[in-house]
Amino acid sequence: MNQTQKLTNENTVWHEPHIFRSDREKQNNHKSKILWFTGLSGSGKSTIANAVEHQLYHQGARTYVLDGDNIRKGLCKDLGFSDADRTENIRRIGEISKLMLDAGVIVLTAFISPFRKDREIVRNLVPTGDFIEIFCDAPLEICETRDPKGLYKKARAGQIPEFTGITSPYENPENPELVLITGNKSVDECVKDVLDYMKNHGVFIK
Amino acid sequence: MNQTQKLTNENTVWHEPHIFRSDREKQNNHKSKILWFTGLSGSGKSTIANAVEHQLYHQGARTYVLDGDNIRKGLCKDLGFSDADRTENIRRIGEISKLMLDAGVIVLTAFISPFRKDREIVRNLVPTGDFIEIFCDAPLEICETRDPKGLYKKARAGQIPEFTGITSPYENPENPELVLITGNKSVDECVKDVLDYMKNHGVFIK
Repeated sequence: MNQTQKLTNENTVWHEPHIFRSDREKQNNHKSKILWFTGLSGSGKSTIANAVEHQLYHQGARTYVLDGDNIRKGLCKDLGFSDADRTENIRRIGEISKLMLDAGVIVLTAFISPFRKDREIVRNLVPTGDFIEIFCDAPLEICETRDPKGLYKKARAGQIPEFTGITSPYENPENPELVLITGNKSVDECVKDVLDYMKNHGVFIK
Repeated sequence: MNQTQKLTNENTVWHEPHIFRSDREKQNNHKSKILWFTGLSGSGKSTIANAVEHQLYHQGARTYVLDGDNIRKGLCKDLGFSDADRTENIRRIGEISKLMLDAGVIVLTAFISPFRKDREIVRNLVPTGDFIEIFCDAPLEICETRDPKGLYKKARAGQIPEFTGITSPYENPENPELVLITGNKSVDECVKDVLDYMKNHGVFIK
């Protein structure tokens, strides 16, 4: 490999230096993973994802939270909430997560992601063990009582068609890596459960 | 903010801790940027982007290269090469780049991105100064002689419809941040030009 070779020399085969995921993980002192939070609106996905990120950041990790705020207004602004559009939405989020995984980042996603098959598609996009499905399990009644964005109220009033838990189904994960009973636990306890899982599965190097 | 509060307490307004781009930039010791390489097939975009990444990695920077290999087979596998699909392709790449920018990463993109308006859309997605357009300027004749993937040959044989430079236009950047005359310069010289631009524009902190 001779970096002074002219690009114009058609006889040159330029062997590109390439930085691999393993190089980035070494640089970051942690493996990259996808922490996929799933559950009803109001089940605590976003709150816990952000609290976990906060802890990880202060441990020096490279992280990023993907959520409705940065996805629905950007990459997926052309999509609605029909079943087909929800599927495409999750497919794209899966593909971005895969890129970020390759970039060495611990990606935390906070989407209802109600359909089992869509979550399985994402799981199968990446190497075994890299997709950590975290089910934020809280009864509809509790989520509806919380209703932090007033969405359940609107859905009950018929102002939001196809609202998960009301007029559109949520399919519980069958074999999630982690279940957080968010109705019974504090945010701190949930964060600890997630970090313990990561420690026990060798995410942190040395 | 009391992290021990139960998520179930509907009277609680939970103020989520949030990690901002500025936090990540501080952690990384560099600003995040989009280095947007544009030019004909064979003009050196991918080669130079990877060589720049290699240098940046060894300086301890967090980087990622987006190119046809990781985009066209993943996020944009539903898209073809019509004008509309090319536009949607670049829009999505712009949106991912924006997310990675927010994640503190120096993103290097290596796409022909032939249409001026599409590149301008990406430029306008992000704060002023964060989109660094790098024109890999080489005459069609040289690119066609290189033809590293045999694509020009196929295009001339009519096997690839809408091939940029042959049957689809390439619109030169009007005010790119950087022009690399890749027909006259070595890879090393091009890499140096890019790194010098970054140094001179305060990308590296401390």
